[in-house]
Amino acid sequence: MNSKKKVSIAVIRRLPRYYRYLSDLLKMDITRISSKELSARMGITASQIRQDLNCFGGFGQQGYGYNVEYLYNEIGKILGVDKKFNTIIIGAGNMGQALANYGNFEKRGYHLVGIFDVNPKIIGKKIKNIEIMHIDKIEEFLKENKVDIAILTVPYEHTPEVADRVARLGIKGLWNFSPMDLKLPYDVVIENVHLSDSLMVLGYRLKEKFGRVEDKTQNE
Amino acid sequence: MNSKKKVSIAVIRRLPRYYRYLSDLLKMDITRISSKELSARMGITASQIRQDLNCFGGFGQQGYGYNVEYLYNEIGKILGVDKKFNTIIIGAGNMGQALANYGNFEKRGYHLVGIFDVNPKIIGKKIKNIEIMHIDKIEEFLKENKVDIAILTVPYEHTPEVADRVARLGIKGLWNFSPMDLKLPYDVVIENVHLSDSLMVLGYRLKEKFGRVEDKTQNE
Repeated sequence: MNSKKKVSIAVIRRLPRYYRYLSDLLKMDITRISSKELSARMGITASQIRQDLNCFGGFGQQGYGYNVEYLYNEIGKILGVDKKFNTIIIGAGNMGQALANYGNFEKRGYHLVGIFDVNPKIIGKKIKNIEIMHIDKIEEFLKENKVDIAILTVPYEHTPEVADRVARLGIKGLWNFSPMDLKLPYDVVIENVHLSDSLMVLGYRLKEKFGRVEDKTQNE
Repeated sequence: MNSKKKVSIAVIRRLPRYYRYLSDLLKMDITRISSKELSARMGITASQIRQDLNCFGGFGQQGYGYNVEYLYNEIGKILGVDKKFNTIIIGAGNMGQALANYGNFEKRGYHLVGIFDVNPKIIGKKIKNIEIMHIDKIEEFLKENKVDIAILTVPYEHTPEVADRVARLGIKGLWNFSPMDLKLPYDVVIENVHLSDSLMVLGYRLKEKFGRVEDKTQNE
């Protein structure tokens, strides 16, 4: 099995979910699962699952299903859970601070090495023992430190300009929390987080299940 | 076309993405698109797209593709973008405050009506003109106000107990930010947000594209 084989990004996007579901199966001592059963749990068609897993050589055998532990470990390796990514946060407002304190990230190998902002009131304060620096120190910081990822939690209107600035400085990965599909003319990997996608699904399910919603125009 | 027809949750989870992509197409004045072209843009197989859209009767014609504006509007209606959901936030720490200030939610019909916490230092303070109340006022508040959704941004270890408490009080929708797949023995709709899924994809793409990552054990 060669996990270095090129896998399409659409498949990769589904891997963290497979990884979580397989982790749950392991906790339940389930050692083997068919694509049909996995399909029922995850709400992805069985043929999509087979197609996804075939991208790295296919881990299943017709009629026998998948070995849960093996698949879990292989997906983990593909996702790089054994790697370390040096990460900075730009924008130490509420979202930035919340992410800095999110324990799950450090556990998955995302190592916070710097926090930047422009607000003089918070420059010099510490979050998780890291001093918040002024964004104007970032050139110097990036010369002296190897950084893989910048988490962008700056106000919406400043996001493109800040993204551009750090991309020019050689940052190769951006995790963007402004509700926009940020794109840059550089060779940079960008993940845009769309929090409202998940909220819209919640709203839909609520409406379908309980029908307790009003039209927007009522009571306003 | 009957948009009231029961649609599977797996399909619904993809709808906000279709909705965003169709919105982008509209902005580019693209009026018609084939499932094949949409597939290439979105990274979902064309057959999955056809299968998804067939769930509400199918909007395309063989050889003609989809009418972008019509599809956009229908998906919007299915997702309930014309509805209003009264929402409270429990946990006014950094994440809670960040979400309270996230303008996109109000725009999509999620109307913030209350904020709760247990920290005496912040009780009585205002976020977006809403006074932070002590969680012990929640029984009284929910008797007097119709609330559809509680956003849970409380510490990990308190999440199950707080979720249980508000579900007993009749809240029907929970948007959970603790990194756990929260489940409750009540008739409640729960959306768990897994922020690290997106970060893991970023890490993978970075590793594949630039190979500039270290093993976790190095330099530690």
